[in-house]
Amino acid sequence: MTEPHLADDFDPTASSLSDQVAPEVMAELLAVRGSIDNIDATLVYLLAERFKATQRVGYLKARHKLPPADPDRETAQIGRLRRLAEEAHLDPAFAEKFLNFIISEVIRHHQAISDEHNGGN
Amino acid sequence: MTEPHLADDFDPTASSLSDQVAPEVMAELLAVRGSIDNIDATLVYLLAERFKATQRVGYLKARHKLPPADPDRETAQIGRLRRLAEEAHLDPAFAEKFLNFIISEVIRHHQAISDEHNGGN
Repeated sequence: MTEPHLADDFDPTASSLSDQVAPEVMAELLAVRGSIDNIDATLVYLLAERFKATQRVGYLKARHKLPPADPDRETAQIGRLRRLAEEAHLDPAFAEKFLNFIISEVIRHHQAISDEHNGGN
Repeated sequence: MTEPHLADDFDPTASSLSDQVAPEVMAELLAVRGSIDNIDATLVYLLAERFKATQRVGYLKARHKLPPADPDRETAQIGRLRRLAEEAHLDPAFAEKFLNFIISEVIRHHQAISDEHNGGN
């Protein structure tokens, strides 16, 4: 028996709706869900790369004793993402909520790096 | 004078830290931020594509009078994303929070499509 792969645990057909749906409707649903699953894997790897970049920023800030947050930078980022969202036909309010969600996680990381770097507890 | 482009409004050097930072440190910070900005544009376009896919699911569910949420599907998605996050060295707890954040927006969209489709008010 070979080593089980991590992805083996995932059932792409898992659904609470299986017994309420005609087979051809379920087939259509599963086809779209396959695309969503591919996009989600891409999002996870892209977010991991983004946190690698913000971690570099965190260490730079800690080394030079700079504050974790940068309000002018965040304002510029939010304005840009709202405009990009409009071009992409994504709700700009959602794009802003999304960036705030990410930034609050990033600031939490920066604070942790700073505490660790400056021997805080 | 040419028409101003949307991206013209964005200042990639915007920072509240400018007067606290040596020029060479600011240069390093801006280099990493350039990568973060590229990743963020990719995230916006990818999220837009994801919502196009979930919108197709929303119409399918509305047409066949299926509920907006699918708990077994969500459990399978969360488990998979946590495993993918581990492979990508992203905090699995953050990946789960992220997916919940997206799913709650999707369910809100599905509910709106359902209300509209079934003449709800």
